[in-house]
Amino acid sequence: MKRTNYCGQISLAHEGTKQTLCGWVHSYRNHGGVLFIDLRDRTGFVQLVIGPDNEKAFKEASSLRNEYVVCATGTVAKRKEGYINKNIPTGEVEVIVEDIETLNTCVPLPFDIDTDKNISEDIRLKYRYLDLRNARMVRNLTMRHKIAQTVRRFFDEHGFLEVETPILTRSTPEGARDYLVPSRVHNGKFYALPQSPQMFKQTLMASGIDRYFQLARAFRDEDLRADRQPEHTQIDIEMSFVELDDIFAIAEDMMKTVFTSVGEHIETPFIRMPYREALLRFGSDKPDMRFGMEISDITEIFKNTAFKVFEGIIKEGGAIRALKAENSAGKLSRGVIDKLTELVKKNGAKGLVWLKFKDGKFEGPSAKFFSETELNALKEHFAANTDDTVFIGSDMKADTCALFMGALRKELIKILGLKPLKKWAPLWVVNFPLLEYIPEEDRYDAAHNPFTAPVKEDIPLLETEPLKVRSNQFDMVLNGMELASGSIRNHRRDVQERILALMKHSKEEAARRFGMLLNALERGTPPHGGMGLGFDRLVALICGEDSIKEVIAFPKTTAAACPLTESPNIVDAKQLDELGIAITRMEEETSK
Amino acid sequence: MKRTNYCGQISLAHEGTKQTLCGWVHSYRNHGGVLFIDLRDRTGFVQLVIGPDNEKAFKEASSLRNEYVVCATGTVAKRKEGYINKNIPTGEVEVIVEDIETLNTCVPLPFDIDTDKNISEDIRLKYRYLDLRNARMVRNLTMRHKIAQTVRRFFDEHGFLEVETPILTRSTPEGARDYLVPSRVHNGKFYALPQSPQMFKQTLMASGIDRYFQLARAFRDEDLRADRQPEHTQIDIEMSFVELDDIFAIAEDMMKTVFTSVGEHIETPFIRMPYREALLRFGSDKPDMRFGMEISDITEIFKNTAFKVFEGIIKEGGAIRALKAENSAGKLSRGVIDKLTELVKKNGAKGLVWLKFKDGKFEGPSAKFFSETELNALKEHFAANTDDTVFIGSDMKADTCALFMGALRKELIKILGLKPLKKWAPLWVVNFPLLEYIPEEDRYDAAHNPFTAPVKEDIPLLETEPLKVRSNQFDMVLNGMELASGSIRNHRRDVQERILALMKHSKEEAARRFGMLLNALERGTPPHGGMGLGFDRLVALICGEDSIKEVIAFPKTTAAACPLTESPNIVDAKQLDELGIAITRMEEETSK
Repeated sequence: MKRTNYCGQISLAHEGTKQTLCGWVHSYRNHGGVLFIDLRDRTGFVQLVIGPDNEKAFKEASSLRNEYVVCATGTVAKRKEGYINKNIPTGEVEVIVEDIETLNTCVPLPFDIDTDKNISEDIRLKYRYLDLRNARMVRNLTMRHKIAQTVRRFFDEHGFLEVETPILTRSTPEGARDYLVPSRVHNGKFYALPQSPQMFKQTLMASGIDRYFQLARAFRDEDLRADRQPEHTQIDIEMSFVELDDIFAIAEDMMKTVFTSVGEHIETPFIRMPYREALLRFGSDKPDMRFGMEISDITEIFKNTAFKVFEGIIKEGGAIRALKAENSAGKLSRGVIDKLTELVKKNGAKGLVWLKFKDGKFEGPSAKFFSETELNALKEHFAANTDDTVFIGSDMKADTCALFMGALRKELIKILGLKPLKKWAPLWVVNFPLLEYIPEEDRYDAAHNPFTAPVKEDIPLLETEPLKVRSNQFDMVLNGMELASGSIRNHRRDVQERILALMKHSKEEAARRFGMLLNALERGTPPHGGMGLGFDRLVALICGEDSIKEVIAFPKTTAAACPLTESPNIVDAKQLDELGIAITRMEEETSK
Repeated sequence: MKRTNYCGQISLAHEGTKQTLCGWVHSYRNHGGVLFIDLRDRTGFVQLVIGPDNEKAFKEASSLRNEYVVCATGTVAKRKEGYINKNIPTGEVEVIVEDIETLNTCVPLPFDIDTDKNISEDIRLKYRYLDLRNARMVRNLTMRHKIAQTVRRFFDEHGFLEVETPILTRSTPEGARDYLVPSRVHNGKFYALPQSPQMFKQTLMASGIDRYFQLARAFRDEDLRADRQPEHTQIDIEMSFVELDDIFAIAEDMMKTVFTSVGEHIETPFIRMPYREALLRFGSDKPDMRFGMEISDITEIFKNTAFKVFEGIIKEGGAIRALKAENSAGKLSRGVIDKLTELVKKNGAKGLVWLKFKDGKFEGPSAKFFSETELNALKEHFAANTDDTVFIGSDMKADTCALFMGALRKELIKILGLKPLKKWAPLWVVNFPLLEYIPEEDRYDAAHNPFTAPVKEDIPLLETEPLKVRSNQFDMVLNGMELASGSIRNHRRDVQERILALMKHSKEEAARRFGMLLNALERGTPPHGGMGLGFDRLVALICGEDSIKEVIAFPKTTAAACPLTESPNIVDAKQLDELGIAITRMEEETSK
């Protein structure tokens, strides 16, 4: 018996045809001596009907259980009136089985295929092959496949060459958080898995490849937060003879193409927002612009205030910032507001002032500290309406104030269940500083990475006011997630060396750690730049999944382990001996 | 100045237009006070002309040297009669430069970009960014890119889902030759880099993914022969509910699509040849069928021979095999034949008999041992003509005889410079045995891998005559290279366990080492099979390159090192401490 079609594709168009289908017994019912089986494959399922008149098939089918694997041949028929199910694509038809063969059986399962994921992550991952049979996971993996093909086709059509860069490479100049691979041929030496193909893609630009892309695997051995993975995939691109505008244009075009291909719409060009503006207006360098509720500077309103806290802060040049949560007063009980106060304190605030607008005026325990003029100015500033709440934060440090107000905004969006103003809100965050100062070590460090080029006109400032040097770095933010990051790179050795010197790398150390790059820069490296975009995150956003684990076929747990393969695991002493290494410390065997 | 076009794309169609081009100074000449520059980018090069009348541009251009990076604006003009170069695509035009900017300089190079590769591999790889500027390398990487896109598009269009499988996984059941990655979170435990995605793709079939593909990175820490790499890329596929024919059909269709896309023709369907036939006819399990010169069994001719050597071998049931090298006698001096004799001896032969055909009869030092009847039969068997040489090998073991005659055939093809009968000669080698017997350990071992399914009808033979069980394994051979390998896998736990038992794995050991697979098999794994095809090798064949290093952007040396990044390398003691490992043996520092 040879498959003629997929289960989910059988429709009335096939009525009267003979079909052979292969798949899994999704459900199994005996209705008055007739067997009804939903047969499932990757595409969906279709109803098989086996009556007792077909003795051989009936006998075979009678022994079936859920998740048995079968192959069945039969004739497609229209379901009788009253049995039609308009909710599923194959709901108008059924297959009257003539012959059925059991290809494999199945022992009782640890969870239902249709389960709503109310099972522990360990169990889901240990039996990932069962978990992946779930329709949602099939949809996610299919979506990932489709997006990958669209991305590659896009770059191919735009003159990019896909180049595979090595997985076995050298520990990065930064070093920390590299996965290491001991060398058997060179005992005592190690490869490292790449945290990004950065060095290689810059080398490809020095090679004249001009436009490079790769869906590249990247590795980072860090303590895993909820949504990190030891290995992830990034859409990695690099271009020669370009400026920021060129990279933005290609990236926006790629995003538009991807979103369109999955039936979504994303507006281009993306907004461009300076880093400081994002911080001040949204309290975040990755603002979620699906929502309003901007933070504003209201220092001016309180310039003559009698309220001691604000007075002191204003005198010292600090910041007073506020936001308005519309139609929220009724929902924000005292308990909720206490929790919000806790939240901002955890983010560095000393306290939080709040006022609810009711019957034409502001109320709340702090209202009494403010003058009528101040309250009126506030009312006007926010165009306050009944049931609005205004939160006011203040701090000597403007950035601290921005960050805790940003945390407050994020939490309010969540607890008030705000409706997004749009489904997709992308933006570029730009104008990051090139360097930051590390007072303890009396040196500068790269705010992003040491290969980012300064804005051309600012190069002389490297000598005089390094902190004022603007970088050519950018982030792409989508719905409050940092999706991509990139920059124009240094292509001149002298500029690169000057920056490394500010970071207090001696010439010798720079040559040792960054030698390959510096050597390439003085041998005809063209101006170039590029970016890396988190592919797992992009797919998760499009699939509406909170966690990237839902769009990775075989993810690791938060403890960087794989319950399916039981990796990492112990290895033979002989293997270690060949590598010239020994174990000096064993994980405590508490988890077993 | 913003690039308007690529150098290699300027033609007469652009005559009179203003163009801005970016690239590298490929060559530089001053002819009677006029500067001629060949400006090169990925697409080719075009001639720039800068006359002394344009003072600013002339001054800038005068300081240029080879491999400087420039951006130039000018007007495309038709070259004067007599200056047209029909050998290059842009040979009819030149660009009269109006403005030119130097974007980067270049120190003196260790080798010319146009070099014919007569430089050491270490130097080529250390300056890979210069090496990759060579037109041949640009062509190879471009070809690799194109083939990759074609392969992916093909599988996408045929309903395969691309699924990324983990790089950080568990040491394989086989264990040896795994690259290990010490775990920081679980000290004392190790990840391993996959030698193939085998376990994961079988898991995906258990997941109902039905058709999977991936251009997958695979790793193997073996002592590198000339053309091996620690990491390579394979076109990896797996399909459910299929038989060998289905895999062959998809693979042939894919190959045809790839070859057609690069302007080549490959005949489908491929020949299918049983393993034993390949061995007997060509002395190899990967016969190069671009050439004839088959080996034949001539035992019958010598059944009554007086020649002691043959007589003894025939009596013991050994093999006498021969091949004819046409028009070769004149080229095969005694010295050459001595070398060929050495070669077959190295491959297990005791000696080699040869006869040259001249003036209607066989000559040579061995001719005297044979009767007139034998020599006549030989003449008839080979339809011998003047200048033909016949080589006869004999051995008690038929396989040994096959193998050294195969080595002889291969060498003769080389030294005689035989013309291939066709450019591409693909075939499937099939009917491998499932198991082989290891007498020292009194157990069976998988001839291919333990997951290969036996031919269905042979399953009962597992109990009685395991060596007679045919496997569902196959190889794809192209021009004498093993390009792909695959099989139908075991999908039933009982059969898989029976095979593991024959390999003398206890149930407990099988569960420990193959547990994940066995668990999946008893939970509704469908019949499935697939293959892995060496992508680097495929690209190298199409590019006409002998070594896969020529089609990998950043390959390792035969010592598994990367001169560009200097990996592997030493790492910080702190990193090792975090991993809970220590170095017990250092490579001797002889190479530095």
